[in-house]
Amino acid sequence: MRRFKWLSVFVTVVIVLCISSVAMAAPAGSGDSLDSLVHVQKYTRAIHIMGMLLVGFGFLMVFVKKYGRSAITATYLLVSIAIPMYFLKDSMGILGVENTPIDALILAEFAAASLLIGAGAVLGRLKMMQYLLLGLLFVPLYSFNEWILLSGGLGLIKAGVFVDTGGSIIIHSFGAIFGLGAIFSLTTKKEFDVPVESDDTSDRFSLLGSMVLWMFWPSFCAALVPAADVPKTAINVILALCGSTLATYFTSLAFRKKVAVADIANAALAGGVAIGATCNHASFTMAFIIGAIAGFISVFGYAVIQERLQRAIKKIDTCGVLYLHGLPGLFGGIAAIFVVQGIQGGAEAKGIGITIVLALVSGLVVGKILSLFGGTAEPYADSDELDVA
Amino acid sequence: MRRFKWLSVFVTVVIVLCISSVAMAAPAGSGDSLDSLVHVQKYTRAIHIMGMLLVGFGFLMVFVKKYGRSAITATYLLVSIAIPMYFLKDSMGILGVENTPIDALILAEFAAASLLIGAGAVLGRLKMMQYLLLGLLFVPLYSFNEWILLSGGLGLIKAGVFVDTGGSIIIHSFGAIFGLGAIFSLTTKKEFDVPVESDDTSDRFSLLGSMVLWMFWPSFCAALVPAADVPKTAINVILALCGSTLATYFTSLAFRKKVAVADIANAALAGGVAIGATCNHASFTMAFIIGAIAGFISVFGYAVIQERLQRAIKKIDTCGVLYLHGLPGLFGGIAAIFVVQGIQGGAEAKGIGITIVLALVSGLVVGKILSLFGGTAEPYADSDELDVA
Amino acid sequence: MRRFKWLSVFVTVVIVLCISSVAMAAPAGSGDSLDSLVHVQKYTRAIHIMGMLLVGFGFLMVFVKKYGRSAITATYLLVSIAIPMYFLKDSMGILGVENTPIDALILAEFAAASLLIGAGAVLGRLKMMQYLLLGLLFVPLYSFNEWILLSGGLGLIKAGVFVDTGGSIIIHSFGAIFGLGAIFSLTTKKEFDVPVESDDTSDRFSLLGSMVLWMFWPSFCAALVPAADVPKTAINVILALCGSTLATYFTSLAFRKKVAVADIANAALAGGVAIGATCNHASFTMAFIIGAIAGFISVFGYAVIQERLQRAIKKIDTCGVLYLHGLPGLFGGIAAIFVVQGIQGGAEAKGIGITIVLALVSGLVVGKILSLFGGTAEPYADSDELDVA
Repeated sequence: MRRFKWLSVFVTVVIVLCISSVAMAAPAGSGDSLDSLVHVQKYTRAIHIMGMLLVGFGFLMVFVKKYGRSAITATYLLVSIAIPMYFLKDSMGILGVENTPIDALILAEFAAASLLIGAGAVLGRLKMMQYLLLGLLFVPLYSFNEWILLSGGLGLIKAGVFVDTGGSIIIHSFGAIFGLGAIFSLTTKKEFDVPVESDDTSDRFSLLGSMVLWMFWPSFCAALVPAADVPKTAINVILALCGSTLATYFTSLAFRKKVAVADIANAALAGGVAIGATCNHASFTMAFIIGAIAGFISVFGYAVIQERLQRAIKKIDTCGVLYLHGLPGLFGGIAAIFVVQGIQGGAEAKGIGITIVLALVSGLVVGKILSLFGGTAEPYADSDELDVA
Repeated sequence: MRRFKWLSVFVTVVIVLCISSVAMAAPAGSGDSLDSLVHVQKYTRAIHIMGMLLVGFGFLMVFVKKYGRSAITATYLLVSIAIPMYFLKDSMGILGVENTPIDALILAEFAAASLLIGAGAVLGRLKMMQYLLLGLLFVPLYSFNEWILLSGGLGLIKAGVFVDTGGSIIIHSFGAIFGLGAIFSLTTKKEFDVPVESDDTSDRFSLLGSMVLWMFWPSFCAALVPAADVPKTAINVILALCGSTLATYFTSLAFRKKVAVADIANAALAGGVAIGATCNHASFTMAFIIGAIAGFISVFGYAVIQERLQRAIKKIDTCGVLYLHGLPGLFGGIAAIFVVQGIQGGAEAKGIGITIVLALVSGLVVGKILSLFGGTAEPYADSDELDVA
Repeated sequence: MRRFKWLSVFVTVVIVLCISSVAMAAPAGSGDSLDSLVHVQKYTRAIHIMGMLLVGFGFLMVFVKKYGRSAITATYLLVSIAIPMYFLKDSMGILGVENTPIDALILAEFAAASLLIGAGAVLGRLKMMQYLLLGLLFVPLYSFNEWILLSGGLGLIKAGVFVDTGGSIIIHSFGAIFGLGAIFSLTTKKEFDVPVESDDTSDRFSLLGSMVLWMFWPSFCAALVPAADVPKTAINVILALCGSTLATYFTSLAFRKKVAVADIANAALAGGVAIGATCNHASFTMAFIIGAIAGFISVFGYAVIQERLQRAIKKIDTCGVLYLHGLPGLFGGIAAIFVVQGIQGGAEAKGIGITIVLALVSGLVVGKILSLFGGTAEPYADSDELDVA
């Protein structure tokens, strides 16, 4: 019974996790203080982010016609492996200081978001078990980069100096460039030849995921900012998203014969990606402009760069994460150097450079490891591992 | 390159907007005070309203079988044009006093809601560029009516006297009657003859949009009420929606051969429309009754009035916004005169009358202007402007 | 006009309800105190629960291919009948003390959740009018059990002793076992022979409902806990859901030829069901373990027990509520006896026993009553009562 083997592996892992997590004792609460209300407000934003991870990222990836149920299943597994892992890491004080439980939860959700972005690049070409392995390998590497950029890890960047409130670099760029690295070992000839197809129903589900991401994005960026800065941050994110949505339409119209649904579903969100680094610093006007430019960059990526790059390197980035998360994220990080008052430009640039290198190397190595375990029999097909009619 | 012309128009508009919006400097925050927590709670409701605008209104309009992706695209564009426009207007203190940023955001979302309602009347018969023009023309007209009713504009109604917390009149009736005006110039012979078709998948998406509207409606009505009144207001809205949902079922059963899915998706929400004017004033019992009556009115509109009216005037109201937003909104506004203690009935009636006239004239004029730019080649077809298989 | 008869019955009921509910006067608010902010935070969680009831439970039940629109309609009706009924009961102080309005709303949502669970067992085999009757009969019986367990009703269990914060027993087990009782009179030979079919689109809608339940589940369990305990409770629920999601995948892999989509959509949620009883007491590690075990139990139920039991008793549990809500709920309640410090094990066990008996008897009786009114002409078909193409 080969499958019971996997069940027993899972049980063993659970037991090991539990023994190693004696530190994860839940703290006691204490009345209805102003402080506890602030924590509950963070919790509300954590729920919104969970909506982005599951319904948002999950359904955005349902655009692949015959792979929708698998994309959702993979999303469930990736989220369920990443959050406890990161949370355990945080509780044990590894790679950074221990946070309050609610902050640790939000940081764990950020890690899961970055993982889902990376997984989007290889979507439809991994076995379910490989998604789980991807999650296991990704979280420590993500945490390592985060530790260097935010907590002074290795002494490369002073703690508290790198500006990236909403994760343009740490979450989006890291995930996307990791994915770019991973596809080098994870695109077979057959997978390169089979087109990724969508239909009117998969498109509508994808647009649903897109809108769920759009609506909750302000909570993603404002998740950890002080209460007094939440409204301003949220409005910046919304104006950036308005900017990228409008720019997406006009750019898609300019560069294509007809407007592409995939541009609308994806590039409309580029403003959220790019505003991350400056979301609590930019003026309202600047936020709108950053969003509009990000929308332009994203559509330009999908319409002009994607096909040429894929043909040049003979690799497939299924969701085009480089164009939604990679380039707009890098743009947002670089914009911060010019927009944020009192920023240490050198440290910011160094952090961006470190992220690019670490993400690419991580992706190349993890992709190679995953490729040792094969891949799907049929690319982009639910029937491969799910019992479907 | 005709399309690059549009891209350059867009870039020009962005630059002009930015120069004119020097006033839009984001204010600095200040600690975790009780006051800032109140603002964050408003922000949470603003996110809920954004969910209504995008996933709610957007997917409710996906009921048109072959126009789902276009309806979503149009929703994205309408929201993204309306919110920055209204926000800019507010920041510059035009047509009313400047509000706190979070209040301005919520008022901008209200404007976007009214715009989406108006657009629902002509859904599927405008080119994407016309939706954008519709947004550009609608927001000032909406703001003008809002200014007269709420801020004492033109000296017609004293500021602070008109009762419409949840926007039965200002948002719903205005949008719906505007749409009624617009269809006069925006229904061609061909469009009148092509039926608006749905199928089982478009129906399910539409019901999804309906439920998202239902669940977040309490936040729409309670968005700007003081914290202490939020629970009561929210419960009133929920009871009104329960009332309209039940009444919808029984009324649809009574007036049709079989219960219509479109009735369930739309009229179930009529309670939310009607309770707007009295949401923080009505007793729980009264809220339920107002909702039930609104549900009856709405289904009566869809089942009995719609076809007769459309045949009489030879015009199409694609989403039947007159029956979901128009009549229930007017009913709600009139009900306020009898339900709200200490209300100035004369001012209330005057405000309702002004809204009807202004909305109709606005719709007629804007419809005429839009009609100068033609319309879709094929009504209600995604393939018209989107690149679909 | 037989149908107008139903409309007039509805109108009569509304009038009677209104006369009997003079006590439902809405209380006046009082400023932005810390206390009122706590109420608004509860209100946010109430909105989340509403999302679970409508979009969550509603769309989870859309997995039945040809019954999606009916499932949504039934969900709308069940929620709209249960919430006002329970709210009225509470306002009148029947079967328990009167709560603050926002607490009463949340308790009403809990009743609606339990009702939807029970209805899931007979989904597709009731006429719409029977769903309404089911709601009318269910709410008093649910309230009776709740009164015994939580408010010292009949003097069986001392008030405040029974531990079930998130409703493993009171909500989930009660609803599921009630459903089990109801199917005994509500499965015809024809219904037993017609298979319940899903397709790729109904599956994706069902997974959407599943994810909406998953994301909002922390708010369900933390709805009524003090602010200071919300983060800890929420994290426990999320870790339990991660545990059940992972366990679901591995267990489905072990017990089936290929992983079943229905397992993923349903059993992934079992951790939320099971953690209810201990959600504010368990340690983080314990929460993850409880979730993982619940996921195992649930898939074992779907994969091994369901078909055998159905064939043995010749009855159909359409949604398999026994395996998502029944067994994991009972497991969660029993786990509380061992996990919660200072718990009165005897009282807890007595409460569980009372719930099992009361739910089963209630279900048997209500099922019998409902069966007197017949059932659908065609099982699991939208066309039976809805006007569909």
